[in-house]
Amino acid sequence: MTDEPKTIAFVLYPGLTLLDLAGPLQVLGALSELGMPYRAVTVAERKEPMGTDTPLSLLATHTFAEVPRPAAVMVPGGGAPTMRALTDETLLSYLRGAAESAEFMTSVCTGAMILGAAGLLEGREATTHWLFLESLKEFGATPARKRWVEDGPMITAAGVSAGIDLALHLVGRIAGDEVQRGVQFMIEYDPEPPLGPLDWSAPPRELFQQWMESSLRQGLEGHPELLARLLVHV
Amino acid sequence: MTDEPKTIAFVLYPGLTLLDLAGPLQVLGALSELGMPYRAVTVAERKEPMGTDTPLSLLATHTFAEVPRPAAVMVPGGGAPTMRALTDETLLSYLRGAAESAEFMTSVCTGAMILGAAGLLEGREATTHWLFLESLKEFGATPARKRWVEDGPMITAAGVSAGIDLALHLVGRIAGDEVQRGVQFMIEYDPEPPLGPLDWSAPPRELFQQWMESSLRQGLEGHPELLARLLVHV
Repeated sequence: MTDEPKTIAFVLYPGLTLLDLAGPLQVLGALSELGMPYRAVTVAERKEPMGTDTPLSLLATHTFAEVPRPAAVMVPGGGAPTMRALTDETLLSYLRGAAESAEFMTSVCTGAMILGAAGLLEGREATTHWLFLESLKEFGATPARKRWVEDGPMITAAGVSAGIDLALHLVGRIAGDEVQRGVQFMIEYDPEPPLGPLDWSAPPRELFQQWMESSLRQGLEGHPELLARLLVHV
Repeated sequence: MTDEPKTIAFVLYPGLTLLDLAGPLQVLGALSELGMPYRAVTVAERKEPMGTDTPLSLLATHTFAEVPRPAAVMVPGGGAPTMRALTDETLLSYLRGAAESAEFMTSVCTGAMILGAAGLLEGREATTHWLFLESLKEFGATPARKRWVEDGPMITAAGVSAGIDLALHLVGRIAGDEVQRGVQFMIEYDPEPPLGPLDWSAPPRELFQQWMESSLRQGLEGHPELLARLLVHV
Protein backbone atom coordinates (compact mmCIF):
# COMPACT_ATOMS: atom_id res chain seq x y z
CA MET A 1 0.00 0.00 0.00
CA THR A 2 1.26 3.47 -0.85
CA ASP A 3 0.78 6.38 1.50
CA GLU A 4 -1.94 8.00 -0.58
CA PRO A 5 -3.95 10.80 0.99
CA LYS A 6 -7.36 9.85 2.34
CA THR A 7 -10.26 11.18 0.33
CA ILE A 8 -13.10 13.27 1.75
CA ALA A 9 -15.97 13.23 -0.75
CA PHE A 10 -18.41 16.16 -0.77
CA VAL A 11 -21.62 15.02 -2.44
CA LEU A 12 -23.24 17.37 -4.94
CA TYR A 13 -26.79 17.14 -6.26
CA PRO A 14 -28.91 19.71 -8.12
CA GLY A 15 -30.41 22.46 -5.99
CA LEU A 16 -28.43 21.92 -2.79
CA THR A 17 -27.99 24.73 -0.26
CA LEU A 18 -24.69 26.38 -1.14
CA LEU A 19 -23.50 27.24 2.37
CA ASP A 20 -24.17 23.69 3.66
CA LEU A 21 -21.49 22.59 1.22
CA ALA A 22 -19.14 25.57 1.22
CA GLY A 23 -18.54 25.80 4.99
CA PRO A 24 -17.26 22.24 5.46
CA LEU A 25 -15.51 22.23 2.08
CA GLN A 26 -13.51 25.33 3.03
CA VAL A 27 -12.63 23.94 6.46
CA LEU A 28 -11.79 20.36 5.50
CA GLY A 29 -10.16 21.47 2.24
CA ALA A 30 -7.61 23.29 4.39
CA LEU A 31 -6.26 19.98 5.76
CA SER A 32 -4.14 19.37 2.68
CA GLU A 33 -2.92 22.99 2.66
CA LEU A 34 -1.70 22.42 6.20
CA GLY A 35 0.22 19.32 5.12
CA MET A 36 -2.21 16.69 6.42
CA PRO A 37 -2.63 13.52 4.31
CA TYR A 38 -6.19 14.26 3.21
CA ARG A 39 -7.65 15.49 -0.05
CA ALA A 40 -11.13 16.89 -0.54
CA VAL A 41 -13.03 16.14 -3.74
CA THR A 42 -16.51 16.99 -4.94
CA VAL A 43 -18.51 14.09 -6.36
CA ALA A 44 -21.70 14.01 -8.39
CA GLU A 45 -23.54 11.67 -10.70
CA ARG A 46 -22.13 13.62 -13.64
CA LYS A 47 -19.46 16.26 -14.12
CA GLU A 48 -21.90 18.83 -15.50
CA PRO A 49 -22.81 22.25 -14.10
CA MET A 50 -25.66 21.98 -11.63
CA GLY A 51 -27.70 24.67 -9.93
CA THR A 52 -27.85 25.44 -6.22
CA ASP A 53 -30.44 27.31 -4.16
CA THR A 54 -28.48 30.48 -4.99
CA PRO A 55 -27.65 32.10 -8.35
CA LEU A 56 -24.53 29.99 -8.74
CA SER A 57 -23.89 26.74 -10.57
CA LEU A 58 -21.32 24.18 -9.46
CA LEU A 59 -19.15 21.64 -11.19
CA ALA A 60 -17.83 18.57 -9.34
CA THR A 61 -14.29 17.30 -9.73
CA HIS A 62 -15.31 13.60 -9.81
CA THR A 63 -18.20 11.29 -10.59
CA PHE A 64 -19.57 8.92 -7.94
CA ALA A 65 -18.06 6.05 -9.93
CA GLU A 66 -14.59 7.60 -9.71
CA VAL A 67 -14.63 7.76 -5.90
CA PRO A 68 -16.31 4.55 -4.71
CA ARG A 69 -14.43 4.20 -1.41
CA PRO A 70 -13.86 7.60 0.21
CA ALA A 71 -12.54 7.78 3.75
CA ALA A 72 -15.24 10.33 4.62
CA VAL A 73 -18.40 11.64 3.02
CA MET A 74 -20.26 14.92 3.51
CA VAL A 75 -23.87 15.37 2.36
CA PRO A 76 -25.28 18.93 2.22
CA GLY A 77 -28.97 19.68 2.62
CA GLY A 78 -31.54 22.08 1.21
CA GLY A 79 -35.24 22.49 0.50
CA ALA A 80 -37.33 20.85 -2.24
CA PRO A 81 -34.27 19.53 -4.13
CA THR A 82 -33.09 17.74 -1.01
CA MET A 83 -36.53 16.17 -0.56
CA ARG A 84 -36.25 15.04 -4.19
CA ALA A 85 -32.86 13.51 -3.38
CA LEU A 86 -34.51 11.33 -0.70
CA THR A 87 -35.72 9.07 -3.51
CA ASP A 88 -32.71 9.39 -5.82
CA GLU A 89 -31.56 5.77 -5.93
CA THR A 90 -28.26 6.60 -7.67
CA LEU A 91 -27.32 8.98 -4.87
CA LEU A 92 -28.61 6.67 -2.12
CA SER A 93 -26.72 3.63 -3.39
CA TYR A 94 -23.55 5.69 -3.68
CA LEU A 95 -23.93 6.59 0.00
CA ARG A 96 -24.69 2.98 1.05
CA GLY A 97 -21.61 1.76 -0.80
CA ALA A 98 -19.37 4.47 0.63
CA ALA A 99 -20.66 3.79 4.15
CA GLU A 100 -19.35 0.22 4.02
CA SER A 101 -15.78 1.44 4.41
CA ALA A 102 -15.86 5.17 5.27
CA GLU A 103 -14.59 6.25 8.66
CA PHE A 104 -17.03 9.15 8.78
CA MET A 105 -20.39 9.73 7.08
CA THR A 106 -21.40 13.32 7.73
CA SER A 107 -24.23 15.64 6.84
CA VAL A 108 -25.23 19.26 7.19
CA CYS A 109 -28.80 20.46 7.64
CA THR A 110 -31.40 18.30 5.86
CA GLY A 111 -28.55 16.30 4.36
CA ALA A 112 -29.20 14.10 7.41
CA MET A 113 -32.53 13.13 5.86
CA ILE A 114 -30.64 11.83 2.81
CA LEU A 115 -28.40 9.74 5.07
CA GLY A 116 -31.60 8.58 6.74
CA ALA A 117 -33.25 7.69 3.43
CA ALA A 118 -30.16 5.62 2.61
CA GLY A 119 -30.86 3.65 5.81
CA LEU A 120 -27.73 4.88 7.53
CA LEU A 121 -29.29 6.53 10.61
CA GLU A 122 -31.29 3.51 11.82
CA GLY A 123 -30.90 3.35 15.62
CA ARG A 124 -28.57 6.35 15.65
CA GLU A 125 -28.79 9.69 17.37
CA ALA A 126 -28.72 12.48 14.79
CA THR A 127 -29.55 16.11 14.13
CA THR A 128 -30.63 18.28 11.21
CA HIS A 129 -32.10 21.74 10.52
CA TRP A 130 -34.32 22.69 13.47
CA LEU A 131 -37.43 22.83 11.28
CA PHE A 132 -37.01 19.20 10.21
CA LEU A 133 -35.69 17.72 13.46
CA GLU A 134 -38.71 15.51 14.20
CA SER A 135 -38.65 14.15 10.64
CA LEU A 136 -35.55 12.13 11.51
CA LYS A 137 -37.79 9.71 13.40
CA GLU A 138 -39.20 8.56 10.07
CA PHE A 139 -35.76 7.18 9.25
CA GLY A 140 -35.34 5.31 12.52
CA ALA A 141 -33.09 7.96 14.09
CA THR A 142 -33.36 9.60 17.49
CA PRO A 143 -33.39 13.39 16.98
CA ALA A 144 -31.08 15.43 19.19
CA ARG A 145 -31.21 19.23 19.42
CA LYS A 146 -27.45 19.87 19.24
CA ARG A 147 -25.09 21.82 16.99
CA TRP A 148 -23.69 18.49 15.81
CA VAL A 149 -24.14 14.88 16.88
CA GLU A 150 -21.56 12.13 16.61
CA ASP A 151 -22.81 8.55 16.87
CA GLY A 152 -20.24 6.03 15.68
CA PRO A 153 -19.22 6.94 12.13
CA MET A 154 -22.30 9.10 11.60
CA ILE A 155 -21.77 12.81 12.31
CA THR A 156 -24.71 15.08 11.57
CA ALA A 157 -24.89 18.87 11.91
CA ALA A 158 -27.80 21.21 12.53
CA GLY A 159 -28.92 23.72 9.87
CA VAL A 160 -26.73 25.32 7.19
CA SER A 161 -24.06 27.26 9.12
CA ALA A 162 -23.65 24.39 11.63
CA GLY A 163 -21.57 22.63 8.98
CA ILE A 164 -18.68 24.95 9.84
CA ASP A 165 -18.72 23.83 13.47
CA LEU A 166 -19.02 20.15 12.50
CA ALA A 167 -16.13 20.47 10.06
CA LEU A 168 -13.88 22.14 12.64
CA HIS A 169 -14.75 19.37 15.08
CA LEU A 170 -13.78 16.82 12.44
CA VAL A 171 -10.48 18.60 11.77
CA GLY A 172 -9.78 18.28 15.48
CA ARG A 173 -10.64 14.56 15.45
CA ILE A 174 -8.37 13.98 12.46
CA ALA A 175 -5.47 16.32 13.14
CA GLY A 176 -5.72 17.57 16.71
CA ASP A 177 -6.51 20.86 18.40
CA GLU A 178 -3.55 22.80 17.08
CA VAL A 179 -4.45 22.24 13.44
CA GLN A 180 -8.11 22.91 14.23
CA ARG A 181 -7.12 26.23 15.80
CA GLY A 182 -4.99 27.04 12.75
CA VAL A 183 -7.92 26.46 10.42
CA GLN A 184 -10.17 28.53 12.67
CA PHE A 185 -7.70 31.43 12.40
CA MET A 186 -7.41 30.86 8.66
CA ILE A 187 -11.15 31.33 8.15
CA GLU A 188 -11.19 33.95 10.94
CA TYR A 189 -14.08 32.13 12.57
CA ASP A 190 -14.90 34.39 15.48
CA PRO A 191 -18.58 34.91 14.82
CA GLU A 192 -20.47 38.09 15.74
CA PRO A 193 -24.09 37.62 14.67
CA PRO A 194 -25.30 41.24 14.57
CA LEU A 195 -28.44 40.43 16.57
CA GLY A 196 -26.66 38.04 18.92
CA PRO A 197 -27.48 34.36 19.49
CA LEU A 198 -30.78 32.88 18.33
CA ASP A 199 -33.60 32.94 20.86
CA TRP A 200 -34.82 29.35 20.95
CA SER A 201 -37.66 30.20 23.31
CA ALA A 202 -39.56 31.61 20.32
CA PRO A 203 -38.35 30.25 16.98
CA PRO A 204 -40.42 31.74 14.13
CA ARG A 205 -41.71 28.39 12.91
CA GLU A 206 -44.81 29.92 11.30
CA LEU A 207 -42.55 32.00 9.03
CA PHE A 208 -41.30 28.81 7.38
CA GLN A 209 -44.26 26.43 7.59
CA GLN A 210 -45.50 27.12 4.07
CA TRP A 211 -41.96 26.79 2.70
CA MET A 212 -41.51 23.45 4.51
CA GLU A 213 -44.76 22.08 3.20
CA SER A 214 -44.13 23.17 -0.38
CA SER A 215 -40.56 21.81 -0.23
CA LEU A 216 -41.95 18.41 0.74
CA ARG A 217 -44.80 18.49 -1.80
CA GLN A 218 -42.55 19.60 -4.66
CA GLY A 219 -39.68 17.30 -3.79
CA LEU A 220 -41.76 14.20 -3.10
CA GLU A 221 -44.26 14.41 -5.93
CA GLY A 222 -44.92 10.83 -6.97
CA HIS A 223 -43.93 9.46 -3.56
CA PRO A 224 -47.18 9.83 -1.60
CA GLU A 225 -46.28 7.40 1.15
CA LEU A 226 -43.04 9.15 2.21
CA LEU A 227 -44.67 12.55 1.64
CA ALA A 228 -47.50 11.70 4.01
CA ARG A 229 -45.11 10.50 6.71
CA LEU A 230 -43.00 13.65 6.51
CA LEU A 231 -45.93 16.07 6.29
CA VAL A 232 -46.93 14.96 9.78
CA HIS A 233 -43.94 16.89 11.15
CA VAL A 234 -44.65 20.21 9.40
CA MET B 1 -39.77 53.38 -13.95
CA THR B 2 -41.05 49.92 -13.15
CA ASP B 3 -40.70 48.43 -9.71
CA GLU B 4 -37.90 46.06 -10.69
CA PRO B 5 -35.99 44.32 -7.94
CA LYS B 6 -32.62 45.82 -7.02
CA THR B 7 -29.65 43.75 -8.06
CA ILE B 8 -26.90 42.57 -5.71
CA ALA B 9 -23.93 41.50 -7.81
CA PHE B 10 -21.51 38.91 -6.38
CA VAL B 11 -18.23 39.20 -8.23
CA LEU B 12 -16.51 35.98 -9.31
CA TYR B 13 -12.90 35.63 -10.42
CA PRO B 14 -10.74 32.51 -10.79
CA GLY B 15 -9.36 31.04 -7.56
CA LEU B 16 -11.48 32.97 -5.07
CA THR B 17 -12.07 31.63 -1.56
CA LEU B 18 -15.36 29.74 -1.72
CA LEU B 19 -16.71 30.57 1.74
CA ASP B 20 -16.06 34.31 1.28
CA LEU B 21 -18.61 34.14 -1.51
CA ALA B 22 -20.99 31.47 -0.25
CA GLY B 23 -21.77 32.98 3.17
CA PRO B 24 -23.02 36.35 1.90
CA LEU B 25 -24.62 34.79 -1.19
CA GLN B 26 -26.69 32.44 0.98
CA VAL B 27 -27.71 35.24 3.35
CA LEU B 28 -28.47 37.97 0.81
CA GLY B 29 -29.95 35.47 -1.64
CA ALA B 30 -32.63 34.82 0.99
CA LEU B 31 -33.99 38.37 0.62
CA SER B 32 -35.96 37.47 -2.49
CA GLU B 33 -37.23 34.25 -0.89
CA LEU B 34 -38.60 36.37 1.93
CA GLY B 35 -40.43 38.60 -0.54
CA MET B 36 -38.02 41.56 -0.50
CA PRO B 37 -37.47 43.41 -3.81
CA TYR B 38 -33.89 42.30 -4.27
CA ARG B 39 -32.30 39.74 -6.53
CA ALA B 40 -28.81 38.30 -6.18
CA VAL B 41 -26.76 37.51 -9.27
CA THR B 42 -23.23 36.24 -9.78
CA VAL B 43 -21.14 38.19 -12.28
CA ALA B 44 -17.86 37.37 -13.97
CA GLU B 45 -15.88 38.41 -17.01
CA ARG B 46 -17.16 35.32 -18.79
CA LYS B 47 -19.84 32.73 -18.13
CA GLU B 48 -17.38 29.84 -18.05
CA PRO B 49 -16.57 27.45 -15.21
CA MET B 50 -13.84 28.85 -13.02
CA GLY B 51 -11.91 27.25 -10.17
CA THR B 52 -11.94 28.28 -6.52
CA ASP B 53 -9.47 27.58 -3.71
CA THR B 54 -11.43 24.36 -3.09
CA PRO B 55 -12.12 21.38 -5.36
CA LEU B 56 -15.18 23.04 -6.82
CA SER B 57 -15.71 25.08 -9.97
CA LEU B 58 -18.29 27.83 -10.27
CA LEU B 59 -20.35 29.28 -13.06
CA ALA B 60 -21.73 32.85 -12.90
CA THR B 61 -25.22 33.75 -14.01
CA HIS B 62 -24.17 37.01 -15.73
CA THR B 63 -21.22 38.74 -17.32
CA PHE B 64 -19.94 42.08 -16.01
CA ALA B 65 -21.33 43.70 -19.16
CA GLU B 66 -24.83 42.38 -18.42
CA VAL B 67 -24.97 44.00 -14.94
CA PRO B 68 -23.30 47.40 -15.30
CA ARG B 69 -25.35 49.21 -12.62
CA PRO B 70 -26.02 46.91 -9.64
CA ALA B 71 -27.50 48.36 -6.46
CA ALA B 72 -24.88 46.54 -4.40
CA VAL B 73 -21.65 44.66 -5.07
CA MET B 74 -19.84 41.99 -3.06
CA VAL B 75 -16.20 41.11 -3.71
CA PRO B 76 -14.81 37.90 -2.14
CA GLY B 77 -11.16 37.44 -1.25
CA GLY B 78 -8.57 34.70 -1.31
CA GLY B 79 -4.85 34.06 -1.58
CA ALA B 80 -2.60 34.27 -4.65
CA PRO B 81 -5.55 34.53 -7.08
CA THR B 82 -6.86 37.57 -5.18
CA MET B 83 -3.44 39.20 -5.33
CA ARG B 84 -3.53 38.53 -9.09
CA ALA B 85 -6.93 40.22 -9.24
CA LEU B 86 -5.37 43.41 -7.78
CA THR B 87 -4.02 44.15 -11.25
CA ASP B 88 -6.93 42.77 -13.30
CA GLU B 89 -8.02 45.93 -15.10
CA THR B 90 -11.25 44.36 -16.42
CA LEU B 91 -12.34 43.52 -12.89
CA LEU B 92 -11.17 46.85 -11.45
CA SER B 93 -12.95 48.92 -14.05
CA TYR B 94 -16.13 46.93 -13.51
CA LEU B 95 -15.93 47.83 -9.82
CA ARG B 96 -15.18 51.51 -10.50
CA GLY B 97 -18.16 51.72 -12.85
CA ALA B 98 -20.49 49.94 -10.45
CA ALA B 99 -19.36 52.17 -7.56
CA GLU B 100 -20.62 55.26 -9.38
CA SER B 101 -24.22 54.32 -8.64
CA ALA B 102 -24.21 51.40 -6.17
CA GLU B 103 -25.68 51.99 -2.72
CA PHE B 104 -23.26 49.50 -1.18
CA MET B 105 -19.84 48.24 -2.27
CA THR B 106 -18.89 45.36 -0.01
CA SER B 107 -16.04 42.93 0.40
CA VAL B 108 -15.10 39.88 2.43
CA CYS B 109 -11.57 39.06 3.54
CA THR B 110 -8.87 40.19 1.09
CA GLY B 111 -11.63 41.24 -1.30
CA ALA B 112 -11.10 44.60 0.43
CA MET B 113 -7.68 44.80 -1.23
CA ILE B 114 -9.40 44.53 -4.61
CA LEU B 115 -11.74 47.40 -3.68
CA GLY B 116 -8.59 49.23 -2.58
CA ALA B 117 -6.79 48.52 -5.85
CA ALA B 118 -9.81 49.95 -7.66
CA GLY B 119 -9.24 53.17 -5.70
CA LEU B 120 -12.46 52.84 -3.74
CA LEU B 121 -11.06 52.80 -0.21
CA GLU B 122 -9.09 56.06 -0.41
CA GLY B 123 -9.63 57.93 2.86
CA ARG B 124 -12.02 55.25 4.16
CA GLU B 125 -11.90 53.09 7.25
CA ALA B 126 -11.89 49.44 6.23
CA THR B 127 -11.07 45.91 7.34
CA THR B 128 -9.88 42.64 5.79
CA HIS B 129 -8.41 39.27 6.82
CA TRP B 130 -6.35 39.81 10.00
CA LEU B 131 -3.15 38.72 8.24
CA PHE B 132 -3.48 41.45 5.61
CA LEU B 133 -4.92 44.24 7.76
CA GLU B 134 -1.91 46.57 7.55
CA SER B 135 -1.80 46.14 3.76
CA LEU B 136 -4.91 48.29 3.46
CA LYS B 137 -2.74 51.36 4.14
CA GLU B 138 -1.15 50.85 0.72
CA PHE B 139 -4.55 51.67 -0.80
CA GLY B 140 -5.07 54.81 1.22
CA ALA B 141 -7.42 53.17 3.73
CA THR B 142 -7.34 53.27 7.51
CA PRO B 143 -7.32 49.67 8.79
CA ALA B 144 -9.77 48.84 11.59
CA ARG B 145 -9.69 45.60 13.53
CA LYS B 146 -13.44 44.89 13.51
CA ARG B 147 -15.72 42.10 12.29
CA TRP B 148 -17.02 44.50 9.66
CA VAL B 149 -16.59 48.20 8.97
CA GLU B 150 -19.12 50.50 7.36
CA ASP B 151 -17.85 53.82 5.99
CA GLY B 152 -20.32 55.46 3.66
CA PRO B 153 -21.20 53.02 0.89
CA MET B 154 -18.11 50.90 1.54
CA ILE B 155 -18.72 47.93 3.85
CA THR B 156 -15.77 45.60 4.37
CA ALA B 157 -15.65 42.39 6.41
CA ALA B 158 -12.80 40.62 8.18
CA GLY B 159 -11.60 37.19 7.02
CA VAL B 160 -13.68 34.51 5.27
CA SER B 161 -16.45 33.64 7.76
CA ALA B 162 -16.95 37.33 8.64
CA GLY B 163 -18.87 37.66 5.39
CA ILE B 164 -21.83 35.96 7.08
CA ASP B 165 -21.95 38.63 9.79
CA LEU B 166 -21.56 41.45 7.27
CA ALA B 167 -24.34 40.02 5.11
CA LEU B 168 -26.72 39.69 8.07
CA HIS B 169 -25.93 43.28 9.01
CA LEU B 170 -26.75 44.33 5.44
CA VAL B 171 -30.04 42.40 5.50
CA GLY B 172 -30.89 44.38 8.63
CA ARG B 173 -29.99 47.68 6.94
CA ILE B 174 -32.13 46.80 3.91
CA ALA B 175 -35.08 45.01 5.45
CA GLY B 176 -35.00 45.52 9.21
CA ASP B 177 -34.34 43.38 12.25
CA GLU B 178 -37.27 41.01 11.82
CA VAL B 179 -36.18 39.88 8.38
CA GLN B 180 -32.58 39.68 9.55
CA ARG B 181 -33.67 37.44 12.42
CA GLY B 182 -35.67 35.29 10.01
CA VAL B 183 -32.62 34.77 7.79
CA GLN B 184 -30.50 33.99 10.84
CA PHE B 185 -32.98 31.26 11.83
CA MET B 186 -33.11 30.04 8.23
CA ILE B 187 -29.35 29.44 8.17
CA GLU B 188 -29.47 28.38 11.86
CA TYR B 189 -26.64 30.79 12.58
CA ASP B 190 -25.99 30.13 16.24
CA PRO B 191 -22.27 29.40 16.06
CA GLU B 192 -20.47 27.03 18.42
CA PRO B 193 -16.80 26.98 17.44
CA PRO B 194 -15.62 23.73 19.05
CA LEU B 195 -12.56 25.40 20.61
CA GLY B 196 -14.43 28.59 21.52
CA PRO B 197 -13.59 32.13 20.37
CA LEU B 198 -10.22 32.95 18.81
CA ASP B 199 -7.53 34.09 21.22
CA TRP B 200 -6.27 37.34 19.70
CA SER B 201 -3.54 37.71 22.30
CA ALA B 202 -1.54 35.11 20.39
CA PRO B 203 -2.58 34.76 16.73
CA PRO B 204 -0.39 32.13 15.00
CA ARG B 205 0.99 34.57 12.44
CA GLU B 206 4.14 32.52 11.85
CA LEU B 207 1.97 29.60 10.69
CA PHE B 208 0.83 31.66 7.72
CA GLN B 209 3.80 33.90 6.94
CA GLN B 210 5.19 31.69 4.21
CA TRP B 211 1.73 31.31 2.67
CA MET B 212 1.23 35.11 2.72
CA GLU B 213 4.55 35.76 1.07
CA SER B 214 4.07 33.14 -1.62
CA SER B 215 0.52 34.38 -2.28
CA LEU B 216 1.91 37.85 -2.92
CA ARG B 217 4.87 36.66 -5.00
CA GLN B 218 2.74 34.34 -7.14
CA GLY B 219 -0.14 36.75 -7.55
CA LEU B 220 1.93 39.84 -8.27
CA GLU B 221 4.57 38.39 -10.56
CA GLY B 222 5.29 41.10 -13.11
CA HIS B 223 4.17 43.87 -10.74
CA PRO B 224 7.34 44.48 -8.69
CA GLU B 225 6.33 47.88 -7.40
CA LEU B 226 3.02 46.78 -5.81
CA LEU B 227 4.64 43.51 -4.68
CA ALA B 228 7.39 45.38 -2.84
CA ARG B 229 4.87 47.65 -1.11
CA LEU B 230 2.74 44.74 0.06
CA LEU B 231 5.66 42.51 1.12
CA VAL B 232 6.51 45.10 3.76
CA HIS B 233 3.44 43.99 5.72
CA VAL B 234 4.18 40.24 5.73
